[in-house]
Amino acid sequence: MSGPAPAVAAVRTAVRGALADVPPGATVLVACSGGADSLALAAGLAHEARRRARGGTGLVAGAVVVDHGLQDGSAAVAAAAATACRGLGLDPVDVVRVEVGGDGGPEAAARTARYAALDDAARRAGAAAVLLGHTLDDQAEGVLLALARGSGERALAGMRPVRGLLRRPLLGLRRTCTEDACAAQGLAPWQDPTNGRDAPAGVAALPLRSRVRRDVLPVLEDVLGPGVAEALARTADALAESADALDALAADLLRAAAVDPGGDDRAPLGADVLALDVDVLAGAPSAVRRRALHTAAVRSGVPAGALARAHVLAVDALLGEWRGQGDVHLPGARAARRSCGRLYLGGLDPRPADPLRGAPGRSDGGTTGDEHDERE
Amino acid sequence: MSGPAPAVAAVRTAVRGALADVPPGATVLVACSGGADSLALAAGLAHEARRRARGGTGLVAGAVVVDHGLQDGSAAVAAAAATACRGLGLDPVDVVRVEVGGDGGPEAAARTARYAALDDAARRAGAAAVLLGHTLDDQAEGVLLALARGSGERALAGMRPVRGLLRRPLLGLRRTCTEDACAAQGLAPWQDPTNGRDAPAGVAALPLRSRVRRDVLPVLEDVLGPGVAEALARTADALAESADALDALAADLLRAAAVDPGGDDRAPLGADVLALDVDVLAGAPSAVRRRALHTAAVRSGVPAGALARAHVLAVDALLGEWRGQGDVHLPGARAARRSCGRLYLGGLDPRPADPLRGAPGRSDGGTTGDEHDERE
Repeated sequence: MSGPAPAVAAVRTAVRGALADVPPGATVLVACSGGADSLALAAGLAHEARRRARGGTGLVAGAVVVDHGLQDGSAAVAAAAATACRGLGLDPVDVVRVEVGGDGGPEAAARTARYAALDDAARRAGAAAVLLGHTLDDQAEGVLLALARGSGERALAGMRPVRGLLRRPLLGLRRTCTEDACAAQGLAPWQDPTNGRDAPAGVAALPLRSRVRRDVLPVLEDVLGPGVAEALARTADALAESADALDALAADLLRAAAVDPGGDDRAPLGADVLALDVDVLAGAPSAVRRRALHTAAVRSGVPAGALARAHVLAVDALLGEWRGQGDVHLPGARAARRSCGRLYLGGLDPRPADPLRGAPGRSDGGTTGDEHDERE
Repeated sequence: MSGPAPAVAAVRTAVRGALADVPPGATVLVACSGGADSLALAAGLAHEARRRARGGTGLVAGAVVVDHGLQDGSAAVAAAAATACRGLGLDPVDVVRVEVGGDGGPEAAARTARYAALDDAARRAGAAAVLLGHTLDDQAEGVLLALARGSGERALAGMRPVRGLLRRPLLGLRRTCTEDACAAQGLAPWQDPTNGRDAPAGVAALPLRSRVRRDVLPVLEDVLGPGVAEALARTADALAESADALDALAADLLRAAAVDPGGDDRAPLGADVLALDVDVLAGAPSAVRRRALHTAAVRSGVPAGALARAHVLAVDALLGEWRGQGDVHLPGARAARRSCGRLYLGGLDPRPADPLRGAPGRSDGGTTGDEHDERE
């Protein structure tokens, strides 16, 4: 007696592990685009539901198909995916048409709309979990994209196996495994023309992620050896751990450094002003301190997407390289200012004219002599 | 009056900044291979020494040329580099021939021999600093190589601008800048035939780093846009900070968890046994705890190069996923064992025969029921 093909077994094992803590009778949805990853996942969910039903711990296993309406014929693609899901025995199967806005670029806007639709669908169905078909390849591509932006480990860390209701059982499997699983089960996945792998080299109009998939990962595997995608995913895991630890420390630091600006009659008034104690911040390791400053800047109204590492370093220089410098201007019409042993962040009123400004001893705890580098 | 070419000015500014804290009269050496990076650096050092001499804060500026003896004609290449350094006005200029061993592969062995020779030369000359010509490109290549190994942020962090006597003034500059600086000053750098950029595509015998340089970075820049090398270097900076913070926390944790194994009559005896308190370790964030376990394993005699993340995770499972499992075997004939609320690491004696082994309640604070996954 032969068992299922190895790829099918790998997907089933992954789904089973991801649902181990889901109680009998709960509803689990799979987000299915009809592509190989999510179709293999849908088949894995259907199998797991049948297996558990035989053991008396059954699930309600359904699917949500999101139609982004971005390509001609997207409704037909969505309908075909729904038909495939029903064919696998999933029920209920819903098609949700979303309106994709334009914020943050087309890929980000589609992602935002998709996650909102999944959230809605989960709420309507009372689902305990929503399964997503992201694979190890998606994780590796994400690491490369984050690297290209010069991001720290939070961005490099990539997607989590579990986040709220969302679960990603396939993060440890290669994309080829899902393709093999579909083939072994006679499932015909939809080929997204923008996914890049079948597009001719040199087509630059593809989304960046698709170009990474088509042009970068194969070169990396060729040069660095097979296993690069796995290595990138391992890196993402290790960095996720680090990011968690440092984020927790940064949150502790912000709480410890917080000062009530209302109790300070010398505080610059303005919108969303945060006040932080300079000495408390300065005593922390720089990785923790800079994370805390990033969070504080966002809380004070700086748009997170516009806040670059260079901004954070400039604010940090008000602490560690203090020589009486002026306000650090931040995106979103916000600023950072050091005054009287405190760091203020927010929509600060302009610094009032100060008769002592420029006189010796005006600077706050630092030196004044090196305000200007000597020039040759 | 026109100033120096931009590339020459950039190198000079970088050298000047790197030497700002070096006192008058100190000796500074540059490690020069004769390649564009270190030749431009040597010229920058010679210029900085002349500038400071005019200001009365002169330096003794010399060079060390390391002949690895790995290629035919390496002695002639070294002699030509030394001649170029003397022509720039550097004095003393020494050529040091080293013996390259075989440990860790040819590139690692050459690096070990090179750094030992630079260390020796610095000591003989009483040098305050030794300048190395690593550029932003070297840093970016290092990040990609570390990614390919699936390393955490310590390896990704790459080279520091300052480490002991070593200083790397050019880490913020592209390699093309050093090539331009050489050309603008009429300097003819040596072209290393193994550096890869002029080798025909498909020559696989090049060192891995050279293949990354020739085949990977250009593709990344093509797909992801120019600025990828800078982004990789920024990532290396941010991760270096994180690694410093986490390493410090891990060292604190190890100190807090340390138990004297000699005072424990139930301790397994053996070579280099470290004993750690399980409860103290278990309370720490996983990124900190796993770093601490890595350090502890190395201290107990596990060869650092052989210790993989999978080993550390297996030791960590003795803490967080305890179900009475046996010893975790580690490279270097070492092992980890949990017993009586302690974690032991080292060359442990075999666990004595235990009449209670396998009986209910034998496991130490955990459960026994899930030692084996149920199978379908």
